[in-house]
Amino acid sequence: MAALSTVIEPELHNDIVSLNMVRDLTVEDNTAKFTLVLTTPACPLKDVFLQRCEQALIGKVDGIEKIDIKWDAKVPTDRRIHGRLDVPMNSLIAVASGKGGVGKSTVSMNLAVSLAEAGASVGLIDADILNPNIPMMAGLGHGRPKVEDDKMVPLDAYGVKLMSTGFLTTPDKPMILRGPMLHSAIRQFFTDVHWGKLDYMIVDLPPGTGDAPLSLAQSFPLTGVIIVTQPQEVALSDAIRSIAMFEKLNVPILGIVENMAGDFFGEGGGERLAEERGVPFLGRIPLDAEVRIGGDYGRPISVTQPDNPAGQAFHALAQAVAARASVVMLQSADVIPINVIS
Amino acid sequence: MAALSTVIEPELHNDIVSLNMVRDLTVEDNTAKFTLVLTTPACPLKDVFLQRCEQALIGKVDGIEKIDIKWDAKVPTDRRIHGRLDVPMNSLIAVASGKGGVGKSTVSMNLAVSLAEAGASVGLIDADILNPNIPMMAGLGHGRPKVEDDKMVPLDAYGVKLMSTGFLTTPDKPMILRGPMLHSAIRQFFTDVHWGKLDYMIVDLPPGTGDAPLSLAQSFPLTGVIIVTQPQEVALSDAIRSIAMFEKLNVPILGIVENMAGDFFGEGGGERLAEERGVPFLGRIPLDAEVRIGGDYGRPISVTQPDNPAGQAFHALAQAVAARASVVMLQSADVIPINVIS
Repeated sequence: MAALSTVIEPELHNDIVSLNMVRDLTVEDNTAKFTLVLTTPACPLKDVFLQRCEQALIGKVDGIEKIDIKWDAKVPTDRRIHGRLDVPMNSLIAVASGKGGVGKSTVSMNLAVSLAEAGASVGLIDADILNPNIPMMAGLGHGRPKVEDDKMVPLDAYGVKLMSTGFLTTPDKPMILRGPMLHSAIRQFFTDVHWGKLDYMIVDLPPGTGDAPLSLAQSFPLTGVIIVTQPQEVALSDAIRSIAMFEKLNVPILGIVENMAGDFFGEGGGERLAEERGVPFLGRIPLDAEVRIGGDYGRPISVTQPDNPAGQAFHALAQAVAARASVVMLQSADVIPINVIS
Repeated sequence: MAALSTVIEPELHNDIVSLNMVRDLTVEDNTAKFTLVLTTPACPLKDVFLQRCEQALIGKVDGIEKIDIKWDAKVPTDRRIHGRLDVPMNSLIAVASGKGGVGKSTVSMNLAVSLAEAGASVGLIDADILNPNIPMMAGLGHGRPKVEDDKMVPLDAYGVKLMSTGFLTTPDKPMILRGPMLHSAIRQFFTDVHWGKLDYMIVDLPPGTGDAPLSLAQSFPLTGVIIVTQPQEVALSDAIRSIAMFEKLNVPILGIVENMAGDFFGEGGGERLAEERGVPFLGRIPLDAEVRIGGDYGRPISVTQPDNPAGQAFHALAQAVAARASVVMLQSADVIPINVIS
C-alpha cells in the first residue's frame, strides 16, 4: 500500500491511495491483487495506471513479481446537484454551441452512446425544444414515451435513456413557445421522468446565447459545459460569445470540440480558440458523410462504425469529457476527494 | 402596340401591354424601338421577352424587320409596407431557416450582392442580433457606422447597404438579451438608419422558430420569406417547422433554397421538401470550400468568383427570388397590376 501511494493520478495531482482508488489489496504468492476504482468507466488512463502501478511494485516491493488489477469505476457525485434537483444523477453535462448547425446534437448523441458503451449509466435530454433532432438521430423518430405512475418512461437507444419534445410533437405542428414556457418544459424533463440512477446526464442545449440556453444554464446545477464549434472563422466568433456567456454564469467549461474538420470548413480553428481562451481542447471530429448518414438514419457512428476515424474520434472525445468532468467534480467539491469517493 | 399585347408575361399571366411594361414605342425606318420596364433588374426572363417580342412583331407587322429594346426596371411596391414602416423601400424579403448553420447568412449576403450587381438598390439587415455574422462575411468585421442627424449611416459592401449589431458590439462581450429587447433593437435598424430609397431590403433572420424570428415576422410587413435548408433529413424536419410557422403567420413563402448540396450532406432534400409542401424551389447551392473561404474573408463568391458553380448558383437564385417577389407583390396588391407599375 505504501508503494502504491507513490502512484500519482495525473489529472487530480494526488496519489491513488489518498484518493481511495485502491481497494481490496491482497498478496498471493508473488502477485499483488487489488481493485482500482476509477472516477469514470470511460477513463482514458487505464494503461497509464497499469504501467505506473507495475513500476511502483515490481522489483520495488519484496516478493512482488506480478500485479493483477481488477478495474471498477464510480463516477463522483456533483454535490451541487443534490438538494436542487430531485434526480439521482452524479453529473450533469451540457453540450452547447454558439450557433446552430455545428453538429451539437450529433456530438451529444455520440458522446452519450460512447459513455454508455464504456459501462456508464447515461441519460440524454434534448433541450432543443423547438428543433428536437435527437429522436431522428436515435432512430426513434416516431417514438412515444409510456407513462407509469404519472411519470414518463424515457426511450432507450443504444443503452442511453432519452427524452425529447420530438417524442411529444410532430414537425408539422411546430411549437411556437416564448421564453418562460421553454423553461418549464425542460424542468419537467428532469422531474417528471423515470430516469433511475444515472452516472451522466447529458443535456443537448439549444444553440446560441438567447433565452433558452441562458435560462437552462441558470436553472440547473451544471457540472460543466462542452462547447461544440466548427473550424471556420465565422463559426468561431459565435463560439466566443457562447464561452463568454458561460463564464459570466460561472459554469465550468469542460472544453471545446472542433466538429466537421476537413477540406470544406478547414481545420484547427477550435484548437486555436481553446488556446486563446485558456480552456481545454477536447478533440477534433472529422467531416465525414458517414456521420451525417448515421444521424439521418438513427445509427450513431460511434456504435455502428467504431473503427471509422470519426467513430474513433467520438470515443476519444467521450474519454476526454469523462476525465475532465471527474476533475471538475472532485476539485469543486467542498470536501477533500477521498471523502467524495468513499 | 396591338401586336405586343399578344406577348404574355409568363409569371404574371397577363400581356405586357396591359401590365404597362411597354413604354415609348416608336417606329423608325424598319425598326420598332421601345422600352420594356421589367419588375426587377434581376429579371431572369430578358431573353424570353426579347424572343417573344421578335416573334410577335417581325414579319407580323408590316414594315418591321428589326426590334430595338431598351431595358428598364421598376421594382413594384409592396403596398402593405407603406404606413407601417417609415422607410422608402419597395419590398422586404426575409431569409429564414429552421436551424442555424445551414448558411442562411451566406445566402443573404450573396443574394443581396447579386441583386445589387443587377442594378437594384439593396439594403441588408442582419437581424441575428445575438450571432451577427454579416460583418465578417462583408469584410467589415471592425466597421462602425457613422452617425448623421441622429441616424446611423449604413456601411457599404459591394454596393449593398448593411446594418448589423456586429457593428455595435464585439464578440468578447456577448449581448445576452431576452425576447422583448431583441424586438426593439431590430425596429431601430429600420427607423434609425439613413437607408435612402431601396428596391429590396433583405432581412437575415435569426434561425429557428423561437422568440426572435417570430417577433420579427409578426412586426414587419414582409413581402415574403425564403427558407434556407440543407439537403439532409435532420435539417429538413427543422425546415418543415419553419415553413409551418410562416404559414401560420400568413407570410408568403417565396420558396426554398437547398444549400451545401453535395457529397457530404447529400442532395435533393430541399427540392423534395418544396414539392411536398407545395412551395417553389428556388435553387440549389453546391457545397464548395470557396464559399466558406469567401465568407471567412469578406469576399462573397457571387462577386469575386461569378464563374464558380456556387457563384453562378447564387446569381440564378437572386433572379428566381426577384421574379417570385415581383409576382407576390403584384398578386397581393389591392389594385390591378397596371396601376401598381405606372
